[in-house]
Amino acid sequence: MIAGEFRSRRERLLEKLPGLKAETLLVSSLPNIRYLSGFTGSNALLLVAPGEATLFTDPRYTVQSKQESDCRISIVKGPVYEGASKLISRRKWRTIGVERGGITYAAYIELGKHFPINASLVPVAPVVEELRMIKSESELRLIRRSVMTNSTAYEKVVARLKSNSTENDVAAELEYQMRRLGAEKAAFETIVASGARSALPHAQPTSERINRNRLLLVDMGAVQAGYCSDMTRMLHLGKPGTNARKLHKAVLEAQLAAIDAVRENITASAVDRAARQVLKKHGMDKLFVHSTGHGLGLEIHEPPRIGKRDKTRLKAGMVVTIEPGAYMEGFGGVRIEDTVVVTRTGCEILTPTRKELLVV
Amino acid sequence: MIAGEFRSRRERLLEKLPGLKAETLLVSSLPNIRYLSGFTGSNALLLVAPGEATLFTDPRYTVQSKQESDCRISIVKGPVYEGASKLISRRKWRTIGVERGGITYAAYIELGKHFPINASLVPVAPVVEELRMIKSESELRLIRRSVMTNSTAYEKVVARLKSNSTENDVAAELEYQMRRLGAEKAAFETIVASGARSALPHAQPTSERINRNRLLLVDMGAVQAGYCSDMTRMLHLGKPGTNARKLHKAVLEAQLAAIDAVRENITASAVDRAARQVLKKHGMDKLFVHSTGHGLGLEIHEPPRIGKRDKTRLKAGMVVTIEPGAYMEGFGGVRIEDTVVVTRTGCEILTPTRKELLVV
Repeated sequence: MIAGEFRSRRERLLEKLPGLKAETLLVSSLPNIRYLSGFTGSNALLLVAPGEATLFTDPRYTVQSKQESDCRISIVKGPVYEGASKLISRRKWRTIGVERGGITYAAYIELGKHFPINASLVPVAPVVEELRMIKSESELRLIRRSVMTNSTAYEKVVARLKSNSTENDVAAELEYQMRRLGAEKAAFETIVASGARSALPHAQPTSERINRNRLLLVDMGAVQAGYCSDMTRMLHLGKPGTNARKLHKAVLEAQLAAIDAVRENITASAVDRAARQVLKKHGMDKLFVHSTGHGLGLEIHEPPRIGKRDKTRLKAGMVVTIEPGAYMEGFGGVRIEDTVVVTRTGCEILTPTRKELLVV
Repeated sequence: MIAGEFRSRRERLLEKLPGLKAETLLVSSLPNIRYLSGFTGSNALLLVAPGEATLFTDPRYTVQSKQESDCRISIVKGPVYEGASKLISRRKWRTIGVERGGITYAAYIELGKHFPINASLVPVAPVVEELRMIKSESELRLIRRSVMTNSTAYEKVVARLKSNSTENDVAAELEYQMRRLGAEKAAFETIVASGARSALPHAQPTSERINRNRLLLVDMGAVQAGYCSDMTRMLHLGKPGTNARKLHKAVLEAQLAAIDAVRENITASAVDRAARQVLKKHGMDKLFVHSTGHGLGLEIHEPPRIGKRDKTRLKAGMVVTIEPGAYMEGFGGVRIEDTVVVTRTGCEILTPTRKELLVV
């Protein structure tokens, strides 16, 4: 990370505070805390106010928090909100913004109880998530690296795929190769789904062998230096039949149409529509049972959602997946997914892996 | 899972509903949904009422939900709470329990808006988590298997540990072996921390080599068939010096004292105290900067917390970790952790791995 980047993110956040009718924002979502402070631990709160940023965590993180974060560190024994509450009393703040989507109902009520009597909690919209939608140059570098790790791992494993392997074996191998290439973990449980199981969009790998004459769907992502990647590719064990080829051709056409639609200022829903229209032309719109894609970054699913209902206008620097699919229950399914970055005139496809139906 | 187990869990939950002043409980926490319905997908709500259990999910899970769950399935296009809301209107329920710790503040408000005007939301205590604390025989079998996978993976990797490996290499190898042994994933980012980094209780592995004459801390867990395990062991590359031996001896003594304290009806805080007193005797209580342990099951951290403030009385069938530690900044740290199941007269240590300071 470039020195000063955390500070400049907090400065952009502070510009939004007056509009939220809050003097200070108490950040509780861990990815948001990481984004604003650099801290990667599992228990923290971050108070951001003009001229001030204090990170509250527990004694397990005394050393780590100092190493990772440029914020003032407050080590709290017991619940972290008690530490935050004391600071709020001292500063005499009256309006404390809390992230309405980043705090449980129970924690919201608990906070209210422990806070100074004259301070009020102001539930605020996902403003940090809004900042996070547009990636900086340094974030794009990290995402590119995560995408490259993901694709390299895929290519290594595919090059020596054996048809007597199980779905589990292949998933284990893919995750191991990602780790070896520098990922800290898989971004989600790797999907390796053979034959009819590829018709389950979120199939978990099983001990079933990836037999011949079947579709094989691989959906995988890496997390590297905190940043996610996401890719889906289709293989066929043995020569594909008519159904498999038709499905793949239609989904690929839909994916390319959606990618072609991506550019600054188009709405997320219009990109989704571009994919859906192609599948409709092929009589497969009913087989496409999810959204066309989603933003990603520090989390595998971030705004915007490339779906029917999301009217967000895409902006240069947003990173999203484009992943239409078509699923025939009992036979199999096809999904093709790239990670792309929106540019002023279109988009750049980050995923380097070829996307034909790979016959092995 | 034994047939009928989901139903009997829901029946036990229903017995608690009248006390919560709710006619029906809308379950939103995904591990709780899995516990009560068998469904493992990433988007769902579960409504449990007398004589009724309906699982709401989206079209991605049409096939999978039918395969996994014995509940009535309702596939909802759009937000799942809209489906739940319609059912609540039809049934004319007035008091809808919602999990106060399993729903974000934003979702709570959103639910309130979409619900029938004469239905009120009743935030309820973590009742499903309370049921989950006591593990059934079939759950204990799954936890034992997860523990065994974890230990077997550890032993395989340790047997061929090389001192020119990096922390990352070792972590990747451990996770790969867990996968090969049937785990679907690691329960958390595996910790492999060498030398001074072992003093960071939640260290992430780095590209540093696990050089000679240093402590090496390994903290790892598997998730297998949904159930977690958790273990920490200490190694020393080369002959350990006085500090390393003293730290290890004291922490092991504290761990054994805490295990010795575990039995039905003791409070969680008394078990924590047993560990803390031993470390105090060695002048190391200030170096023990976290709780003694935590429950685990479908999640890696579940109630109870074996810590200073938790007055929960342990019951036979609870599964908890016992993991005191002592950390010397700049030198290194020691933690020793087993997964144990509480019995009427004491506890059974599930983790089979020897816990001496292993010199390699």
